[in-house]
Amino acid sequence: MFQKHTSLLFFTHSRHFLSRRHRRQNNKPPYLHRHLSTLSHTLSHPIYTIWASNTGVGKTLVSTGIAASSFKDNISSSKKNKLIYIKPLQTGFPQDSDSAFVYRKTPEIVSNWFPQLALLASNQTLNVSNQILENGSCKNGFFEDGFCERKKLGNGNGNELICKTMYAWKEAISPHLAAEREGANVADSDVLVLLEKCLEIGVVACNGQKGESSVLTLVETAGGVASPGSSGSLQCDLYRPFRLPSILVGDGKLGGISATISAYESLTIRGYDVVAIVLEDHGLENDVPLRSYLRNRVPVLVLPSIPKDPIDNLMEWFNESQSVFESLKGIMLSSYQKRIYRLSEMPKKAQEIFWWPFTQHKLVPEEKVTVIDSRYGENFAVHKVKDENRMTQMFDACASWWTQGPNAALQTKLAQDMGYTAARFGHVMFPENVYEPALECAELLLKGVGKGWASRAYFSDNGSTAIEIALKMAFRKFLVDNELLLDLPQDNTLENGIELKVVALKGSYHGDTLGAMDAQAPSPYTGFLQQPWYTGRGLFLDPPLVSMCDGVWKIAIPRNIYAEDVILEDTSFNSRDQVFNKSRHGSTLASIYSTYISQELQSSSGSTKFSYAGALIIEPVLQGAGGMLMVDPLFQRILVKECKNRKIPVIFDEVLTGFWRLGVESAAKLLLCQPDIACFAKLLTGGMIPLAVTLATNDVFDSFVGDSKLKALLHGHSYSAHALGCAAACNSIKWFKDPQTNPNLIAEQNQLRELWDPELVLKISFHPAVQRVVSLGTLFAVELEVEDADSGYASLCATSLLLKLREDGIYMRPLGNVIYMMCGPCTSPQVCLQMLRILYTRLDEFRQEKIQKVCEVQS
Amino acid sequence: MFQKHTSLLFFTHSRHFLSRRHRRQNNKPPYLHRHLSTLSHTLSHPIYTIWASNTGVGKTLVSTGIAASSFKDNISSSKKNKLIYIKPLQTGFPQDSDSAFVYRKTPEIVSNWFPQLALLASNQTLNVSNQILENGSCKNGFFEDGFCERKKLGNGNGNELICKTMYAWKEAISPHLAAEREGANVADSDVLVLLEKCLEIGVVACNGQKGESSVLTLVETAGGVASPGSSGSLQCDLYRPFRLPSILVGDGKLGGISATISAYESLTIRGYDVVAIVLEDHGLENDVPLRSYLRNRVPVLVLPSIPKDPIDNLMEWFNESQSVFESLKGIMLSSYQKRIYRLSEMPKKAQEIFWWPFTQHKLVPEEKVTVIDSRYGENFAVHKVKDENRMTQMFDACASWWTQGPNAALQTKLAQDMGYTAARFGHVMFPENVYEPALECAELLLKGVGKGWASRAYFSDNGSTAIEIALKMAFRKFLVDNELLLDLPQDNTLENGIELKVVALKGSYHGDTLGAMDAQAPSPYTGFLQQPWYTGRGLFLDPPLVSMCDGVWKIAIPRNIYAEDVILEDTSFNSRDQVFNKSRHGSTLASIYSTYISQELQSSSGSTKFSYAGALIIEPVLQGAGGMLMVDPLFQRILVKECKNRKIPVIFDEVLTGFWRLGVESAAKLLLCQPDIACFAKLLTGGMIPLAVTLATNDVFDSFVGDSKLKALLHGHSYSAHALGCAAACNSIKWFKDPQTNPNLIAEQNQLRELWDPELVLKISFHPAVQRVVSLGTLFAVELEVEDADSGYASLCATSLLLKLREDGIYMRPLGNVIYMMCGPCTSPQVCLQMLRILYTRLDEFRQEKIQKVCEVQS
Repeated sequence: MFQKHTSLLFFTHSRHFLSRRHRRQNNKPPYLHRHLSTLSHTLSHPIYTIWASNTGVGKTLVSTGIAASSFKDNISSSKKNKLIYIKPLQTGFPQDSDSAFVYRKTPEIVSNWFPQLALLASNQTLNVSNQILENGSCKNGFFEDGFCERKKLGNGNGNELICKTMYAWKEAISPHLAAEREGANVADSDVLVLLEKCLEIGVVACNGQKGESSVLTLVETAGGVASPGSSGSLQCDLYRPFRLPSILVGDGKLGGISATISAYESLTIRGYDVVAIVLEDHGLENDVPLRSYLRNRVPVLVLPSIPKDPIDNLMEWFNESQSVFESLKGIMLSSYQKRIYRLSEMPKKAQEIFWWPFTQHKLVPEEKVTVIDSRYGENFAVHKVKDENRMTQMFDACASWWTQGPNAALQTKLAQDMGYTAARFGHVMFPENVYEPALECAELLLKGVGKGWASRAYFSDNGSTAIEIALKMAFRKFLVDNELLLDLPQDNTLENGIELKVVALKGSYHGDTLGAMDAQAPSPYTGFLQQPWYTGRGLFLDPPLVSMCDGVWKIAIPRNIYAEDVILEDTSFNSRDQVFNKSRHGSTLASIYSTYISQELQSSSGSTKFSYAGALIIEPVLQGAGGMLMVDPLFQRILVKECKNRKIPVIFDEVLTGFWRLGVESAAKLLLCQPDIACFAKLLTGGMIPLAVTLATNDVFDSFVGDSKLKALLHGHSYSAHALGCAAACNSIKWFKDPQTNPNLIAEQNQLRELWDPELVLKISFHPAVQRVVSLGTLFAVELEVEDADSGYASLCATSLLLKLREDGIYMRPLGNVIYMMCGPCTSPQVCLQMLRILYTRLDEFRQEKIQKVCEVQS
Repeated sequence: MFQKHTSLLFFTHSRHFLSRRHRRQNNKPPYLHRHLSTLSHTLSHPIYTIWASNTGVGKTLVSTGIAASSFKDNISSSKKNKLIYIKPLQTGFPQDSDSAFVYRKTPEIVSNWFPQLALLASNQTLNVSNQILENGSCKNGFFEDGFCERKKLGNGNGNELICKTMYAWKEAISPHLAAEREGANVADSDVLVLLEKCLEIGVVACNGQKGESSVLTLVETAGGVASPGSSGSLQCDLYRPFRLPSILVGDGKLGGISATISAYESLTIRGYDVVAIVLEDHGLENDVPLRSYLRNRVPVLVLPSIPKDPIDNLMEWFNESQSVFESLKGIMLSSYQKRIYRLSEMPKKAQEIFWWPFTQHKLVPEEKVTVIDSRYGENFAVHKVKDENRMTQMFDACASWWTQGPNAALQTKLAQDMGYTAARFGHVMFPENVYEPALECAELLLKGVGKGWASRAYFSDNGSTAIEIALKMAFRKFLVDNELLLDLPQDNTLENGIELKVVALKGSYHGDTLGAMDAQAPSPYTGFLQQPWYTGRGLFLDPPLVSMCDGVWKIAIPRNIYAEDVILEDTSFNSRDQVFNKSRHGSTLASIYSTYISQELQSSSGSTKFSYAGALIIEPVLQGAGGMLMVDPLFQRILVKECKNRKIPVIFDEVLTGFWRLGVESAAKLLLCQPDIACFAKLLTGGMIPLAVTLATNDVFDSFVGDSKLKALLHGHSYSAHALGCAAACNSIKWFKDPQTNPNLIAEQNQLRELWDPELVLKISFHPAVQRVVSLGTLFAVELEVEDADSGYASLCATSLLLKLREDGIYMRPLGNVIYMMCGPCTSPQVCLQMLRILYTRLDEFRQEKIQKVCEVQS
């Protein structure tokens, strides 16, 4: 970069001059990092990242030009301008210092363009490699520098240029190489946290000044968009958590069209918004094809050719470029304003035109609507207007209705996969066809969750459709096995007298379409108000439930299961493992279960001459929507066995439990038995898009094989086995089960390590506000102690707790008086621990409030 | 490029020497381009595209190295090697000629590496710009050159190097600029057709030779991956129809990591498979971060540093690089073999583990399974093993179960959108939240298909779920409007005596889940064999149908609609427009319809004291799954009016008809009336992924507003309003209705131009094999004349026709004896015309076969 000094009205060198001030600025705003290590940044003024399609395309000149033009329009007004320039990673230092260049050149240009303007400029380097500096306290190969130079144009009357270099290395090579060679490494998280602090300078600049002030922050990257940062992570990945709006400096040279487009695409498939492209003219009119490619959605600006003469001070060039930089600045400001306006209008618009499922709109005022700007791994980026206009991160602890799984790396991978698959296939017809993602997905399913029993994969769109398909499969199998089919004419309907029922558990939930609802016991979801066509077509059994209460795993057994004179044993356990232990199969409880189930099945099939229990359907181990109810695995094991003995096909509804939710790939593993049919959805695609699959044994399949198409299973949805869903499934199935990519996987046991800190879980189970606790795999659930009248699905008792947890950066949704936190299969146990700690604190407050309320009522 | 001549054993110049031979080679294989302009290429030997991350990274050196190493292993064996090198676009010609370089350098290297090898080499330029040559016949600024140089190493005994330059320009700039400046333009389609011909050289080379021969074809692009071709299309878009496996020449310089990754990503999000990356060593170890980024999924090879001395003949460098090129060649061959093996095993695997919907597996032998390698716009790329191992294109005329819409440009756009949205959002929780794609999608829906009546958007996953939601909405609205709700306890079930029915049309189809099925009349889909829980809960009316028979649009009116003594008028029309004309509202037929409908609704609601018709549901104008039945719009208009008069909420099932399928954005426009609720899916996302929406009026929404959550609509699927679906919807909704992107749109009428040639449609309606024809918007359907016993859903009568159309490049699926072709909203009418012509020819043959069969039976 150009190192020439400019003539200055005022010039000062003062090491550490600004470091105290900087320290003050670094005080976190009140709700930042309160507990969780999530990042946040202000939206009070525009912040842009300056990217380049390659090295040497004039990125710093663009930064400088924007910086200079940002001081227009306020020479005589009381409005003051601040320009904050941040260079997170600088190599070749101090010979190359982009922040020094901006610091030196901007005042020079400004004094030329706006001769009356007064300006205070400063430049500071925060950390330098030990190869540059040799004294001070060294940490990870870095010295905290704090070296600061300052200068003034006129009477520094509020206009300010603040330049910062965050990390500097000596060698003029890629940061990852410099970091390695100089032994000065900085972790991505450190870069982000320091950048977060630097971004706060703008807030202080806004607030610390009387009168209106206008602030613009620029973050200039190093090299090209996908050049590695110091840790080796690509910069476009490194900075993604902030997802700052972007300016791309393109390439005007021969080959530059391709380089610019590819760089643009690398940013785009990482979720960045590129607001403008600017490039130097090399006489090749590269802007023309770029505009055509961009369909004029992104403006392309052309700068005059840059003089190659090293002694040229570029003032002439900057003068020629002034109008371009002003246009660019104008685009940046109007794009910022448009974004802020959109973010602020979104809650109201949403309220006006959305019809949210499972939502009483009257209970969701505008201020309760959450604006989600993006997701990055397990975190939402949420727009907060309260107090301050900020973008802040929250952990998606409801796992977006239990669909979520990816960490940031998997999301990045899946985004590429989605782009690739959409380009290669879009969607293509499934029946009678084969294409790679569908075939690979079926292969992975059969050797994964279906291993040992399943032979066929039937794709559909969601849990409900997978269940309806499963029921059709099971009933046909039952009819064939029990030789009931022969007597029926092909167009048989219910009138001919055969009635098929399901055996299911109370509190289970299998989906929202009518067929899935008919397979569940009456509940708030099934009332006439909701579904006038609902008919519970089942034998609904009351299951024994397990949970941890006051440190002990206890089984709550419904009274109708055992005779009045029986005294129950074997119902308390010191560990969860004991609950799942095989040794329980010989217990008294086992025989009690067995007797009860036999009687029920017997009485059911005998009730009407032509009424049969044609299928068993259970959610293995965990009944989710019912309130995160853990069913005694012993009961389910015996139930499966008894049904199999009676040739009643067994369906496992693994929509929630599948793919590591409960710590194992399939919950069937926990039950130590296999179904005839199983349904998967939600996490199947890694939490990207809807896809479901119903797996079946070959016997089930065979009951549909025949000469007529009418014997086939005539159920299918438009996008059956759609390529994008299958591709997402393939990649996330492999990701979760590969110890290389999933640090939580204990390969030899083929299960996840314990994600929720056992000690803290135990402690929470003793908490007076807590009735019961379930912690299993990625799930941690708590049933709050409430008055009977306040329990159940419609209960709003958890509202205050929910709001507080959201303030803490945990996006939680209750199921009535049951609250839960769900993470992904790759989430760090450290993050889970932090969340448990927050919850514990908030439970205390919740308890206090309740006591207070009771006191108020009593007094 | 390096222009030095090599010492040659034999050397010859012969203009036009190979041009005749080339012409012979250009004879299309029998089934190529038989009718439709779809591309195809051989899989009999590996064909690779050589891409570069930038200009000047040594792409041609890599081609040359691969070329040279391809002649290994057969010096003494009888196996002969052929290397075909194709440079489609060359600028700076003749000074720069990559094909001349390969032609000159390869024999030189070969004679060094394999001194015993005999080789015949040739180089030909097919078309040169008028700035290069000045005589010959000029076409579009090009002269057909045919200039050919040849040389021999030893006794040219079958080993052959064939180099071709397809198009050459004089100036050393990007092809799009050279084409413009030299007035020598070539359309993308011409480049592709000529490239297709050149790719056939390998087939001739394979077949024309006795003994085993091994062929490798390289296609070297110009500049970077996204550098424009001659028309201005980016080369990565231009060559996409072939989707050839790719080698990417990366960049080893400073900044080269970023350039290489971005180029890789540009290829990836266009659906290319990059088999290996190879780059020059510049001492920066760029391969290390590349390998880490690629997680070792793609091999990265490093070539020694290339001497910069212009008089260096590079032999030393090639010698040093030999092992790298051999590795690269090995990777290319094994990747090719792996691909071929996979393609060949796919049908069997699919048969073994898929369970296709709506498919009797017994009727689909392995050889009937279609292997779809990719989609490009409206075309599938299909692997054909019969006769020859080829990849060939077919028009997706079943529109993949009526979901499809994108042309190639929209698919490319959507692929980027999918990548961006997956990276920005993945999926995020919908209820009580708002995020851009969902909000924009709802906005577009309400001002598009819902314009003028809809106020709320309720998202779900597919047509079935959208219908179940619509029914729940309608029933609630009906109960509220008719003040039936007040008497009911909240947990009301059917037992309290109120029974709600739908009014629906026979032959309609609303989806496969139980609730959607219960809303349709009994059909093959609803039998006890299929759905033991089916109960037709409707008042099912027999609709009058319209179709063109022998050139006239006729209405077939069910006998039960009118009194016996009535003589029907107004049932024949000369044009389709007349059928939709408002003037029919005053006709006798209108009053006949009105009387019939009133009577039916009356008798229905009177039948049981507590039985009500609580909703009307119709597929406006077209009943798809029922057999592409066009319902008399007059009948539906009157039906809607009569229901509205009785406060029966009206649902339009626009799952098939929505988004331009029938030539207008919403089929409601054709009915000139508006529903209370409407369901959309399929083409909503432009044919990418599942998403559905149920739109509703504010009145409908209001009937769910109250103080309790239990009054809300408690129906939702995990991925409600998922970001990818909404983003795909936003972009395709906008694309289809923008005259800039949809050439078929007549903006002032807000409808599509006629896509199916009216004259040919008329002619087909007279065809003796045809019973009726429906042509409307993107749909053209024909009901085949068959014996009664052979009609209906299970009919296989169209099988022979289907197989022949597939040979012609039309992927068709029949609905029993109804066959149809469906295109996208942007498909060129020229393509539709070609398909109609093919169909007409095949109908003749079909008719002849039938006559022959009858004769055989009679004799």
